[in-house]
Amino acid sequence: MDQANITLQDIVQAHKRIQNYIYRTPLEYNEKISNLYNSNIYLKLENLQITGSFKAREAFNGLLSLSDVDRKCGVIAPSAGNHGIGLAYAAKRLNVPAYVCLPRAADESKVNALESYGAVISYFDSIEEARLSAIEASKENGYKFFSAYNTPTAIAAGGTIALEVLDDLSDVDTVITCMGGGGLTAGMCIALKSVNPKIKIWGIQAKNSPTLEVWHRNGSPTDVDLKPSIAEGLSGPIDPETITFPIIHKYIDRILAVTEEELIDAVRTMLDFHYIVEPSGAAGIASLKRYSKELEGHKVAVLVTGRNISWSRLASLMA
Amino acid sequence: MDQANITLQDIVQAHKRIQNYIYRTPLEYNEKISNLYNSNIYLKLENLQITGSFKAREAFNGLLSLSDVDRKCGVIAPSAGNHGIGLAYAAKRLNVPAYVCLPRAADESKVNALESYGAVISYFDSIEEARLSAIEASKENGYKFFSAYNTPTAIAAGGTIALEVLDDLSDVDTVITCMGGGGLTAGMCIALKSVNPKIKIWGIQAKNSPTLEVWHRNGSPTDVDLKPSIAEGLSGPIDPETITFPIIHKYIDRILAVTEEELIDAVRTMLDFHYIVEPSGAAGIASLKRYSKELEGHKVAVLVTGRNISWSRLASLMA
Repeated sequence: MDQANITLQDIVQAHKRIQNYIYRTPLEYNEKISNLYNSNIYLKLENLQITGSFKAREAFNGLLSLSDVDRKCGVIAPSAGNHGIGLAYAAKRLNVPAYVCLPRAADESKVNALESYGAVISYFDSIEEARLSAIEASKENGYKFFSAYNTPTAIAAGGTIALEVLDDLSDVDTVITCMGGGGLTAGMCIALKSVNPKIKIWGIQAKNSPTLEVWHRNGSPTDVDLKPSIAEGLSGPIDPETITFPIIHKYIDRILAVTEEELIDAVRTMLDFHYIVEPSGAAGIASLKRYSKELEGHKVAVLVTGRNISWSRLASLMA
Repeated sequence: MDQANITLQDIVQAHKRIQNYIYRTPLEYNEKISNLYNSNIYLKLENLQITGSFKAREAFNGLLSLSDVDRKCGVIAPSAGNHGIGLAYAAKRLNVPAYVCLPRAADESKVNALESYGAVISYFDSIEEARLSAIEASKENGYKFFSAYNTPTAIAAGGTIALEVLDDLSDVDTVITCMGGGGLTAGMCIALKSVNPKIKIWGIQAKNSPTLEVWHRNGSPTDVDLKPSIAEGLSGPIDPETITFPIIHKYIDRILAVTEEELIDAVRTMLDFHYIVEPSGAAGIASLKRYSKELEGHKVAVLVTGRNISWSRLASLMA
C-alpha cells in the first residue's frame, strides 16, 4: 500500500481482512434526534464495536497486514486509550506479543482492560516519555511501532466504516465523523468520495485541540494552541508530517469544532438512548445542535466512535 | 402454530420472519468474568437490540404473524416497559396502529420512547386498570391484545436468540437466561433442547418475584408471595394458565433466584464494560457469582436482555 495513495480498493481489502474479527455495527435511525432537527439522522454505533471503539478495526488491519516475522516479534504502542485497548485485544486474538507504554497516571479501568488482554505494560512519568520509550524499544528490540492514526492501515481501516454506511444507506448525503489525528476521517473521505463525490463530509474536532481545523484553514501545518479537553481521544499534538492531513485537506467539506459543553451535552443525549458514549466518541453528535439548520432535510450518518469511559468519570461529567 | 406444541421449526421460521427487522446481536466472550470464575463466559448482548431489549423480536414476530385484517385494525398492550416499547417500534415500522395503556406513574423516559414511535397512549390509575382497559378495548374495537409473554409467537421469538447462540458457539454447554413470565425461557428451552438435549439451561428469577421457581418446585401453579423488585421486567403476577409454564417445567435444568443486591452488583459489573444494563436484563449476570463453582470449566452463554433504564434511576442505584 503506497503511503500517499490509499485507494478504495485498499479499503475494500481491509474490510475483507478484518470482517471476521470485528462487529458489523448497526447504522441506527434515530427518530428523536431526526424530529428535533427536521432531518434524517442515522447513528453508526461504533461505540458497540468489540473493545468499545472503532480502534479495533485499525488494530486488526494493522496486525493482519504485518509480515510473519514482524508479527512474531511483536508490537508496541504508547497508549492507554482506545488505540492501546484495541491493539492489546487484537494482539491477543492473533497471538502477537503486545507491549504498551503508559504514563503512571493512566486511567485504572483502561489499564485493567489492557491487562485482561495480556499486554505487557511499562510505566513512565509522562505520555511523552512513554512515547519516546516506545520508539526506543521498537528500534532496539524490533517491535513494530503502532501509531494511532498515521499509517495507511489505520486509514484504510477507518474507511471500512464508510463501506458499511454506504451499504446500509446508499443515498446518504452527509457524513459526520469525529476527528483527532485524522486516520478515521481520511479513510472515510477516500471511501465516500471514491464512491460518490457528492456526499458531504464533516470532520468534528474538539475546540480545545483544533489542530486539523487550523491546518486546513491555513493550507499547511502550523503551530496550534492546545488546551486539555474531556475528549482526550481527539486531543494532543499531531505529527506535522502525518499522511492524514493531505488527504483530509483535499477531500473534506467542512471542519467544525465543538466546545466542552457541547461534548457533555452530546454524552447526555446518548444516555437518553441508554448508550454510554465517551466524550471523544460524541463529537459528531455534539455538532448537530449548533449546525442543525444546515442539516434540515438531509440524510445524515453520524459516527459515534467509542464508549470507554469509567463510571466514576461519567457520573462526575453528568453531575 | 399450536399453542401447546411450538417446535424448532416454528422458531427457525420466526427467525427468518424477523431477521431483516432486528439486529443480530454479538455473543461476546468476556475475558474478565471468565477469568474470575474459571470458566468461559460469553454474553449474548440483547441489551444492544433495536429498541433496547430482546422484546423487539417478540413484537416483530407477533405483528408479522397477524392476518392483514388484524394488522390493519391495530394492536393494544398494557405496558410501559420493554414490551410496549418494542411493540410501538415494530408497529411503526410495519405501519400498524398501536395503542398502549399505561399507569399514570409510568417512567417518563419510557413514555417518551413510546411517543416517539407514534403509539397512542391512554393513562389509568393503576397497572391493573390499564390491563383491564386494554382487554376491554381489544374486545370492543377489535384491536389485537398483545401479551408480553403468553403467546406462541413470543415464545418462538425468544427461541430465535438460542439459534444465534448455537450458530456462534456450537459447543456451548450451559445457557443462562433471565426469566419473568417465561416467554423467552420457554423459547430458549425448545430451541436448545431440540438441537442438543445435553445443553443445561438455567432460568434466573428475581428472588422478590419467584413465581416460576415456586411453581416448578411444586409441579403446578400455586399462590406466590410477591414483593416489588428493581427488576420490574421480571416481576409481577403471572397468569396461572400461561402456556410458558408447562414448557419450562418440562425442559429447564435449574431455576435460581437472585437478590436485589446481586442484581445491583450485576448492573455495576456491566458498567465496567461500558454497557448500560437494566436490573431485569442483568439477572443472568447476577447469578454467576453465587453459583460460580458449578460453572467451573464450562462454556456458558449468558443472556443480557435489555438496557432501558433512565440515567437518574441508574445513577441512584449505583450511588
